[in-house]
Amino acid sequence: ERSPLPDGLDARLAEQLTFVIEIDRLKAILRQSPLAAAPRRENDAEHSWHLAMMVLVLAEYADEPIDVGHTLRLVLVHDLVEIYAGDTPLYDTAAGVDQRERELAAADQLFALLPDDQAGHLRALWDEFEERRTPEARFAKAMDRFQPILLNWMARGGTWKTFDVTADDVRARKAVIGDGSGALWKAARQLIDEGQRRGWVR
Amino acid sequence: ERSPLPDGLDARLAEQLTFVIEIDRLKAILRQSPLAAAPRRENDAEHSWHLAMMVLVLAEYADEPIDVGHTLRLVLVHDLVEIYAGDTPLYDTAAGVDQRERELAAADQLFALLPDDQAGHLRALWDEFEERRTPEARFAKAMDRFQPILLNWMARGGTWKTFDVTADDVRARKAVIGDGSGALWKAARQLIDEGQRRGWVR
Ligand SMILES: [Ca+2]
Repeated sequence: ERSPLPDGLDARLAEQLTFVIEIDRLKAILRQSPLAAAPRRENDAEHSWHLAMMVLVLAEYADEPIDVGHTLRLVLVHDLVEIYAGDTPLYDTAAGVDQRERELAAADQLFALLPDDQAGHLRALWDEFEERRTPEARFAKAMDRFQPILLNWMARGGTWKTFDVTADDVRARKAVIGDGSGALWKAARQLIDEGQRRGWVR
Repeated sequence: ERSPLPDGLDARLAEQLTFVIEIDRLKAILRQSPLAAAPRRENDAEHSWHLAMMVLVLAEYADEPIDVGHTLRLVLVHDLVEIYAGDTPLYDTAAGVDQRERELAAADQLFALLPDDQAGHLRALWDEFEERRTPEARFAKAMDRFQPILLNWMARGGTWKTFDVTADDVRARKAVIGDGSGALWKAARQLIDEGQRRGWVR
């Protein structure tokens, strides 16, 4: 019995609510990024919310026209597989080796909690984000890479220091922002350049 | 100077990024609800993400047709004013007295960080959620009232116990779910009834 819910609920709704309860676990998946507002690391659920707000506020900078509602869906679901696969920090190259394999297994396990039609729909959103073949996915990915730069900026270093990366490393790993938005990639480079000048990244 | 960002950024973008950084504070606003996945209380940012996921998964239960993308926007922004106004627990009647006043002042302060066009747009989304005159706002509110029932269920009482409320209190305060979805209000009542039977709410 996978559902923690009482008997008597409609069967389809019981599956959906079981999924809704299971994904509460995303709030317990910690990332490496420090919050700006509190002395602790960020979790995946609040990160996903922050990306969604960035989509709302920054959509005008997308280089290709994007459907904002669809882009919201992509960022909301993009980290769900980390409930089982864990967060893989961008600068942790060892953990990156089997990341794809772990995340595919996690996707199979997690989305299977849902009725088949919705499992397929959410899986398609996650695949779209990962493949970056649509303008929406490229902009969603740009948000995912840009947001930690803002947090590192506010922390005067953040993961740039904890992983002891060079500014060139950072630029190389963040260049994908430019696939979604030239203007935001330009702003990101200004933050990285000025961070380097201030000694927050070497 | 309100912006913590370096000089040289485009002025409009600097305002937008200042807002994006300011709303990081929503992650530090604690609610009363306990998480299902970790032994701590939920914060407003992860709560907002959870509601957005519920919109994606449960939209089919809306009693009137809803625009899902628009409903996502409503739940993403609905708690932003609490950055300055704080969370007002549903069962804390004393805190509820000046809630509206505090939240209106907070909205003026927070949205003013944005360029005027976007300040107006986000303010309109928050007003729409509060007024519940659209099907999307009624469904968004239903998510906001239904989600804590799921967390209380998983906690075998949660805020039903910490605020020592009666099942009749809970039913009265949750009935607004039925304005958005008869099916979800029925399910909510099943959870409250069974919670009462198990002694999780008196
Ligand atoms: Ca990730």
